[in-house]
Amino acid sequence: MTHAPTGSANVLTRPGAGLTTRISDSLRDVDQAITSLRDFHAWFTAYRDTEQSMVRHIPFTELKGWRFEESNGNLVHDSGRFFSVRGLRVRDAPGSVPSWEQPVISQPEVGVLGILVKEFDGIPHCLMQAKMEPGNHNGVQLSPTVQATRSNYTRVHGGRPVHYLDYFRNAARHSVLADVLQSEQGSWFYRKRNRNMVVKTTEDVELLDGFYWLSAGQLHALLAVDDLVNMDARTVMSCLPLTDPALPDFRPPEGDPRSLYPDGTDTVRSALTRSLVPGHGSLHSPGSLRNWFTGARADFEGEAILVGLGSLRGWHRSEERISHESGLFFDVMAVDVKTGSREIDGWTQPMIRARGQGVTAFLVQRIEGVLHALVRAKHEPGFMDAVELAPTVQCTPENYAVLPAEAAPPFLDEVLSAPAEAIRFDTVLSEEGGRFFHTRSRYLIVEIPPERELREPDDFRWMAVHQLSELVQHGNYLNIQARSLLACLHSLLCQTRGE
Amino acid sequence: MTHAPTGSANVLTRPGAGLTTRISDSLRDVDQAITSLRDFHAWFTAYRDTEQSMVRHIPFTELKGWRFEESNGNLVHDSGRFFSVRGLRVRDAPGSVPSWEQPVISQPEVGVLGILVKEFDGIPHCLMQAKMEPGNHNGVQLSPTVQATRSNYTRVHGGRPVHYLDYFRNAARHSVLADVLQSEQGSWFYRKRNRNMVVKTTEDVELLDGFYWLSAGQLHALLAVDDLVNMDARTVMSCLPLTDPALPDFRPPEGDPRSLYPDGTDTVRSALTRSLVPGHGSLHSPGSLRNWFTGARADFEGEAILVGLGSLRGWHRSEERISHESGLFFDVMAVDVKTGSREIDGWTQPMIRARGQGVTAFLVQRIEGVLHALVRAKHEPGFMDAVELAPTVQCTPENYAVLPAEAAPPFLDEVLSAPAEAIRFDTVLSEEGGRFFHTRSRYLIVEIPPERELREPDDFRWMAVHQLSELVQHGNYLNIQARSLLACLHSLLCQTRGE
Repeated sequence: MTHAPTGSANVLTRPGAGLTTRISDSLRDVDQAITSLRDFHAWFTAYRDTEQSMVRHIPFTELKGWRFEESNGNLVHDSGRFFSVRGLRVRDAPGSVPSWEQPVISQPEVGVLGILVKEFDGIPHCLMQAKMEPGNHNGVQLSPTVQATRSNYTRVHGGRPVHYLDYFRNAARHSVLADVLQSEQGSWFYRKRNRNMVVKTTEDVELLDGFYWLSAGQLHALLAVDDLVNMDARTVMSCLPLTDPALPDFRPPEGDPRSLYPDGTDTVRSALTRSLVPGHGSLHSPGSLRNWFTGARADFEGEAILVGLGSLRGWHRSEERISHESGLFFDVMAVDVKTGSREIDGWTQPMIRARGQGVTAFLVQRIEGVLHALVRAKHEPGFMDAVELAPTVQCTPENYAVLPAEAAPPFLDEVLSAPAEAIRFDTVLSEEGGRFFHTRSRYLIVEIPPERELREPDDFRWMAVHQLSELVQHGNYLNIQARSLLACLHSLLCQTRGE
Repeated sequence: MTHAPTGSANVLTRPGAGLTTRISDSLRDVDQAITSLRDFHAWFTAYRDTEQSMVRHIPFTELKGWRFEESNGNLVHDSGRFFSVRGLRVRDAPGSVPSWEQPVISQPEVGVLGILVKEFDGIPHCLMQAKMEPGNHNGVQLSPTVQATRSNYTRVHGGRPVHYLDYFRNAARHSVLADVLQSEQGSWFYRKRNRNMVVKTTEDVELLDGFYWLSAGQLHALLAVDDLVNMDARTVMSCLPLTDPALPDFRPPEGDPRSLYPDGTDTVRSALTRSLVPGHGSLHSPGSLRNWFTGARADFEGEAILVGLGSLRGWHRSEERISHESGLFFDVMAVDVKTGSREIDGWTQPMIRARGQGVTAFLVQRIEGVLHALVRAKHEPGFMDAVELAPTVQCTPENYAVLPAEAAPPFLDEVLSAPAEAIRFDTVLSEEGGRFFHTRSRYLIVEIPPERELREPDDFRWMAVHQLSELVQHGNYLNIQARSLLACLHSLLCQTRGE
């Protein structure tokens, strides 16, 4: 790229909030879109009904192209590509259980998760795909425009080309709103990252079968539907930049300060709006948060090393699964997939199946009228860099049955026993259906009263939403559950004109 | 930490530019300080003259506490701590030399590099230490307040306590301006990082022997002195936040556009000042730069794995050094140190000694009056994440004698043949004296004329200074040479009232 000499002015780009404001506006007025949500649901239901895929849990011996390596018991593909299931040995981790062994997915390739954005009548729309994935308990969910492993798009398996891929492989021709390597589940993947991209185009875009344009607001509103917006869509959505329009300063409401503003003098939506930009303030300064987070990383002295899947203590392999002797945590299993709607017509593959339903929750609080979320600096063994920012609560409650009482996650009871009027978001959402079988989590946002004095444990901090949004533009800060919840938090802006 | 309930206002912190502006002001008025630079030089010279250390290159057999492991030839300490010298095997790296083997320092511990800041009469001052390190060809250089490996401050070697460490270990009591895990030389270290911290205190600070308060401006002005401000000081300085006071918009100067503004209508200092904040614009948008950089990382498919030091092809060990058969690159050697001024009185250790003097340079250009630096996305085998942002030129010219012509670094000739009036900075600075023996590089900032149309090669981009400053607050973006040069770039703001 060359630029014009100084004489010809205006080669520089300057910061502008135009598109960012229009994205926020779309959330604040969900009804403004090229089609209605009713139309979308009709289309989606019809699409799901025609989806003919069959997914069947099979014994490992029926896997085609996959085998357990003799030397170490690792479950690998004959091509050496895709992914493999290996063993992970963890030592000196922080917390009450410092050492353990477990299976882990190793997938060194970086995939692309991309949402294509285009404005219609000045309203930003996202091109979403109705996509079958074998792990989805309901078959089809809503996925990003592109959701492709490197093996997919270099067509190792000889499948069909990935639609719309060129918008992301050659994004420089368009406007790039986000492009960042983000971690995936650090409890199940070893150092896995995907490239999260949002690209805006002004070109005409052909609308292919199985794809649908939803306004940014509609897409966020759909987060409230159980098992509809898939994990890959949620993580990309979390990278969408939002802005605060001019909003009056906060004045504490009249009346009983112990209520959550039942008189409507200040809504959670207003508190969220204030939280979207730095000007309204935050409980902790950026320097203070950096000090806390960098300290958590620098003090980490544990290790997590890959070992043979066959050598893991406490894990046993049967014909149909690899499971922990306690019956808890998760299984490694295999599926056979028959479908007419994917790049190829059928395949077999290993998957992870969690034993219980997860709980993933933010506690939030209005602090001087600015919404804050309680974030945890959390170690997960598969992280590239040991510690990332996680939701207040992220666990599978059943797993704690066999662990010491002090291992019980802080705030879990508080989240599960929250009164209905404190619950701002409550939806069951699925993990990535390409690797995880019927693995779901209840996503919650629970507000605690403004006057409550909550002491932050050492590994927790209150953060304003703009502080999370700044960090999500860089990789390896927010873990995938925190990113999902950040998108859910953004969705609290959503309103329809009927409200 | 608890916060007051909503009723009592003002628990939130809001962004403010006060200290940042005072740091910038200090650079713009170097004479404002509690002592003069003349006083400092007198103190420093006197200190250096009393420094009694003796450093001697010794055969490996004279190392005490260090040995070559029989199984793999690695050079390790008996305690298993400090660091070790191992082998690195690189495959499929980008560029014209995709595969090679080399020795590498492995030091998994995260050390602390910290500068303590305190304001005197409203002028921010940095507490700097005159410190002997064995690799310094001139003995003593200026180092940060604290420069300590974890072994140092946990006192594995039974040495003296690290002065002022508590300001950084318990920084939350003070004001944290920067706290970030930064990479070190990816050509010589395997995944090494140090914690770069700037902490401001308002407490009284006892001034210990060997320490000196320099204003932020004085410290930056001293970058122009050969081999004075050490590498660890430079990397921490790069994290200091600077601001742009209100500056009039740029108007192209009259006269011959091919000149570098000899009429003084617009100075490089003005162009730099504009470049410190986003409002004046940048050639590339943040999204475009993220797309370019994330692409470079995501497309990397090489690997660098640790192997035995004894197994490296092309490297030979004699009594006194491990060197490459070409006589180029660098040696591993050992020194004996006798000193009265360090934590302990004497020790032996391995070191790296580069064979030639390096060249580390930014090309800069005023684009519509905003100074931009030409940055390279560069692979170094020791990086945690394959690619970081590097200076325009970073090489040891001698090494290219044995490499194919197409391996010659872009822009090296341009930098070395630049006319005197285009050179904005030119100082020989040392690598870290704790690991590198008499290893130095010429740091250059060379300005090219505004009207020159320079085509950016694929792995290069023009970046405004505020874009570099934003990224340096996060780890693993700017490599250590780029960070050093960023501090040098900031120093172009420096002026004394005499000017």
